[in-house]
Amino acid sequence: MQTFEATEHQHVRYNPLKDEWILVSPHRCKRPWSGQTEQAPEEQPPDPNNPLKAGATRANGQKNPNYTSTYVFPNDFPALLERVPEPPTPDHPLFQASQAKGTCRVMCFHPDSTMTIPLMSVQEITAVINEWINQLEELGRRYTWVQIFENKGAVMGCSNPHPHCQIWASSFLPNEPRVKERCQREYYTKFGKSLLVDYLEQELKQKERIVVQNSEWVALVPYWAAWPYETMLLPTRNNPQRMTDLNESQKVALADIMKLLCTKYDNLFNCSFPYSMGWHGAPTGSSKKPGDSPHWLFHGIYLPPLLRSATVKKFMVGYEMLAQPQRDLTPEQAAQKLRECDVVHYKNKK
Amino acid sequence: MQTFEATEHQHVRYNPLKDEWILVSPHRCKRPWSGQTEQAPEEQPPDPNNPLKAGATRANGQKNPNYTSTYVFPNDFPALLERVPEPPTPDHPLFQASQAKGTCRVMCFHPDSTMTIPLMSVQEITAVINEWINQLEELGRRYTWVQIFENKGAVMGCSNPHPHCQIWASSFLPNEPRVKERCQREYYTKFGKSLLVDYLEQELKQKERIVVQNSEWVALVPYWAAWPYETMLLPTRNNPQRMTDLNESQKVALADIMKLLCTKYDNLFNCSFPYSMGWHGAPTGSSKKPGDSPHWLFHGIYLPPLLRSATVKKFMVGYEMLAQPQRDLTPEQAAQKLRECDVVHYKNKK
Ligand SMILES: O=P(O)(O)O[C@H]1O[C@H](CO)[C@@H](O)[C@H](O)[C@H]1O
Ligand SMILES: O=P(O)(O)O[C@H]1O[C@H](CO)[C@@H](O)[C@H](O)[C@H]1O
Repeated sequence: MQTFEATEHQHVRYNPLKDEWILVSPHRCKRPWSGQTEQAPEEQPPDPNNPLKAGATRANGQKNPNYTSTYVFPNDFPALLERVPEPPTPDHPLFQASQAKGTCRVMCFHPDSTMTIPLMSVQEITAVINEWINQLEELGRRYTWVQIFENKGAVMGCSNPHPHCQIWASSFLPNEPRVKERCQREYYTKFGKSLLVDYLEQELKQKERIVVQNSEWVALVPYWAAWPYETMLLPTRNNPQRMTDLNESQKVALADIMKLLCTKYDNLFNCSFPYSMGWHGAPTGSSKKPGDSPHWLFHGIYLPPLLRSATVKKFMVGYEMLAQPQRDLTPEQAAQKLRECDVVHYKNKK
Repeated sequence: MQTFEATEHQHVRYNPLKDEWILVSPHRCKRPWSGQTEQAPEEQPPDPNNPLKAGATRANGQKNPNYTSTYVFPNDFPALLERVPEPPTPDHPLFQASQAKGTCRVMCFHPDSTMTIPLMSVQEITAVINEWINQLEELGRRYTWVQIFENKGAVMGCSNPHPHCQIWASSFLPNEPRVKERCQREYYTKFGKSLLVDYLEQELKQKERIVVQNSEWVALVPYWAAWPYETMLLPTRNNPQRMTDLNESQKVALADIMKLLCTKYDNLFNCSFPYSMGWHGAPTGSSKKPGDSPHWLFHGIYLPPLLRSATVKKFMVGYEMLAQPQRDLTPEQAAQKLRECDVVHYKNKK
């Protein structure tokens, strides 16, 4: 039989952060596509009554200030409220409900509705990072988990193209960080080092999954990526456990690498690349202190759905929902394609 | 403070099959929608060169027979092949790859491309179930897991509206059934009974999440449902562990309840309701024997994305991907809405 080639032969890969496997079927790239295509993201018309704009009046009658940088306000339709009564104690192990308290905020990145991260300046993105840190500091004092996330593009359920993210803080540790906490803790107990610090060390040696790098950060396609062009942003120095641990140089360099990565994303298919992205660091709450979670490494996660073009996405459906995520191109192939993309945005070329 | 009302107050619910939690935020139903809407599923034009039709020639040059009931053939672009070389043994715990062998088949339900399950007769659906059992018997002898699943509708990545499903068999136990196997085994060890048998007993008493029931089966919205109108099909007698355990009466009654449930789904928003669905039973393989997995109960799972109308779906994006699934209406509200839907299909009314 032939020798194994990752770019030719299906195999499964292990995600040590989630304790899950991914099916990689690179030979499947050859299949033609005749399924659903999305409206090209570029075509979203700007809404003249956009409630996120500086000076606009929102659904609840409140008027936004004429902000010039970032602007944070409470989500008008929050999934989590601060005060709710507690559900009764469950009387059956199969019918368990428990209290959930929290708060949801919206954060605008920029007053201009046509702006996006790759088109903003490093200074403007640094202002976004500084505000994220303020929010984390305030909400992290009261809440166990503060999830900052951006849904970008209509295909990712984003109902407004104005550059913005959401911040959902909760009294409970949600599934994804709960599993990550456990996996990183187990690795630390076993090897005496942080899982992601060890992982990054290997990636910097192997180099084949790195997309772009600067003085403080690396953007790479993880070995266990599920989405076609999924990436992680990892800090190369000081091992910050939470976003609140970043120093000035790390903040500015983070803005720089976000701009670089998102520029490459946009250049890949010549469109404003849709994704969901967000930040994961050690859990927060009143009992937590800086430096208390050496098993954690703060990092960013980009989960973009596009597979072949600006309009053809990967569907995580039947097999993926009921059995296991499956991907077509290998993480190494994805990293190479992104590496080859220009660092000058296609809109800034003419 | 007020007393707790599940339909008013956010809370989290535990899914004992996945060892995961769901955030339920029913007050969020009140929010307006201004995001992406899907093309109404009804508008998919029938393709005259449809490769799944009886007598059609497929991409690889092979001609389908003039089949009159079901028809199974190997997927022309399979994610899993039967023979592939083995990846080298991993030399680092964070870079683990492993062999994956398998096969992918496509199964047409009916020769008519405009047919769907709710419009087919109980006899025609029984033929589908019989063929599923044949496939499971054959592939289950060689493979650890045989995932039968249907992606229905363009919004669920289905590239062809012809009524069909897929069958992916693998040498490995994928994530979802692996976790279900563990959770059911642990419950069985602790309580000496099958998790889903116990669960169903409670649901039949409480009644509030039941959608429809016949002599052998119950369709219900699970207490821990993540998707708005997610349902499970559970057998009420004999505790079958795999689909191959079903007796004649259970097969015909399964066809009947599938038709009933899918008719209600279509009537909910007056459209051909999109979903991914599939079957889970005890793992298979050469060492497995009927009756060897008393911790398992065979069941069906429907995961439909629609939330508010034929064109507005629930997006499982940022918060859901990075933190935890979140739903708006409660499972009890979803069950009630489906219960109220007619059992006569809207297309058969004029
Ligand atoms: O084989 P199909 O129907 O073209 O493919 C569809 O179902 C597969 C299994 O869930 C997914 O991996 C694909 O992303 C989806 O488009
Ligand atoms: O941006 P919105 O309107 O709050 O909502 C979007 O993101 C939320 C958090 O990921 C999801 O729960 C919604 O399904 C999605 O449409």
